[in-house]
Amino acid sequence: MYRIAVVGATGAVGTRMLAMLVESTLPIEEVVALASSRSAGKQVRYGDQLLTVQTLTADSFAGIDIALFSAGGAVSKRFAPIAVEAGAIVIDNTSAFRMDPNVPLVVPEVNAQALTTHHGIIANPNCSTIQMVVGLEPIRQRFGLERIIVSTYQAASGAGQQALNELMRETQAVLDNKDSEPAILPVAGEAHHYPIAFNPIPQIDVFEADGYTHEEWKMIHETKKIMLGDMDAAALKVTATCVRVPVPIAHSEAVYFEVSDKNATADQLRDALTGAHGVVVQDDPAQQLYPQARNAVGSKATYVGRIRPDQEVAGAFHMWNVSDNLLKGAAWNSVQIAETMMDMNLL
Amino acid sequence: MYRIAVVGATGAVGTRMLAMLVESTLPIEEVVALASSRSAGKQVRYGDQLLTVQTLTADSFAGIDIALFSAGGAVSKRFAPIAVEAGAIVIDNTSAFRMDPNVPLVVPEVNAQALTTHHGIIANPNCSTIQMVVGLEPIRQRFGLERIIVSTYQAASGAGQQALNELMRETQAVLDNKDSEPAILPVAGEAHHYPIAFNPIPQIDVFEADGYTHEEWKMIHETKKIMLGDMDAAALKVTATCVRVPVPIAHSEAVYFEVSDKNATADQLRDALTGAHGVVVQDDPAQQLYPQARNAVGSKATYVGRIRPDQEVAGAFHMWNVSDNLLKGAAWNSVQIAETMMDMNLL
Repeated sequence: MYRIAVVGATGAVGTRMLAMLVESTLPIEEVVALASSRSAGKQVRYGDQLLTVQTLTADSFAGIDIALFSAGGAVSKRFAPIAVEAGAIVIDNTSAFRMDPNVPLVVPEVNAQALTTHHGIIANPNCSTIQMVVGLEPIRQRFGLERIIVSTYQAASGAGQQALNELMRETQAVLDNKDSEPAILPVAGEAHHYPIAFNPIPQIDVFEADGYTHEEWKMIHETKKIMLGDMDAAALKVTATCVRVPVPIAHSEAVYFEVSDKNATADQLRDALTGAHGVVVQDDPAQQLYPQARNAVGSKATYVGRIRPDQEVAGAFHMWNVSDNLLKGAAWNSVQIAETMMDMNLL
Repeated sequence: MYRIAVVGATGAVGTRMLAMLVESTLPIEEVVALASSRSAGKQVRYGDQLLTVQTLTADSFAGIDIALFSAGGAVSKRFAPIAVEAGAIVIDNTSAFRMDPNVPLVVPEVNAQALTTHHGIIANPNCSTIQMVVGLEPIRQRFGLERIIVSTYQAASGAGQQALNELMRETQAVLDNKDSEPAILPVAGEAHHYPIAFNPIPQIDVFEADGYTHEEWKMIHETKKIMLGDMDAAALKVTATCVRVPVPIAHSEAVYFEVSDKNATADQLRDALTGAHGVVVQDDPAQQLYPQARNAVGSKATYVGRIRPDQEVAGAFHMWNVSDNLLKGAAWNSVQIAETMMDMNLL
């Protein structure tokens, strides 16, 4: 029986971590909800119970077996080592440790084996990366994978509950022909804020010096680390354009990819994906069946469709990939890592 | 002095054709607003005047010099030859004649010279194609262009005024937690309709047998015809994923492309685009400056930014491309074709 702490329990991801724990196969003795002092005393739902949020301190992890972190990179950097010192396994949803060579970056459908190398901290990948690798790994296994070019259509909730609230508030203001000053998106803390209501924004996270955003950087390097164990692996070329769109929950992705087997067909790809762990194929153009964000909300699955070959380049294909960014992209993948570690006798 | 007919004068594009004519350099004697009998008698604005809409008939084109069509492919197929027979130059915004080898498909910034080959009908390309070729032609001229992979973020108004209304009505219903039955999008007349409110839809126009939508087919083959004069040109490989997003007006596009000059740099590309006809470069990540749909509405320009090299493939780049789909994507390009023909002494 495990004692589990959820750090950032009041957030968009934290509340869903609690919901995923309720559905989990983990035998749970107790769940402790932790957050900053600002949220202490609030109540959060855990199944039929209401948990009172406690202030996160260095003493919070005594007796905790598993600590799920989703309270921002700074909190993880400070408290994850403390939790490990106290004997907990940390599963961290922030980007704080993802590129640390001593920290496995895990999507259970893809690289559960990397969990065996952990030193107390396991990193949960970026939301947009997770759903993409879930949809591509069955193809990589069977046909090889050489190239990914992805354009994303990412939901506001990927930037947190406040960003989701901003989308809804701004949208109503536009419909009422009123002003609404953006204060969160595209990136909280940046100099300029732009309306997400009815307006795609081609910036997620801050810009790197090379003109890519950090979100794009994450999709490139996390994909390589998850699939090939090396954040700079040259065998798989990856590039990305990440765009925030006026959607509350569920990311969509237009994924172009090239496989090694130049004779592969779209039917063979669909075969490889059908029944694959975590994947649901929705692909019947004649019936106008393809994944849609609104249908993915609340589901743990990654939905794939519109699988079709490039007309001019052998071995090149497109896929439309949709998943709930707060579940498979965050809360569910974290809880799933814990379940997988239990199944692998790593807890 | 020209007598000009606007066919489909009450539509999202037709009303903007009238607005573009007001701003045009064309010397205009009279503008005649035409539409189906359902709209006859309505009034539409042409500058300070209100024009009374007349029913389109086979007799509508007597004395007309230029007929701008935007009332659907079936109307163009029936009435464009009649207008030509009556002595008018037809500039057709539908897809009816775009792939006819005897009909030039023209974006004045790219292939004005094709206008010299016309036989009475000039086709206006698809909206998503126009802005892409405007943004890429200056690069193609200087560095050569071998490959385009585009993912679009297309506005509801691309499917007409009714689709735009549906987006706004559905969005309000979602905010009010009420039901709203979609009836137009993704494609009027198709079996299934899906909500566009807060939901990207990866279908624009009907599906072809090969799994591509007709919109994607258009982006592929129209781009080749406009840039290389051959809808099946092999020298430029093009592929596309077209997605409708909850935006009223202005299409955005994530464009990946490969140039022939493998030593080209992003700075050189920006140089080639700066000052290019119809292009505005908005590209300063340090200032969070990049094109946004909301800023493009009402402008005739195509905005480009986020120009950056692929990190692993020489000669490969990304661009974010935004333009008002109803203006440069439709009404303005049509009127601009007429202006260009006048300047070339083809009227």
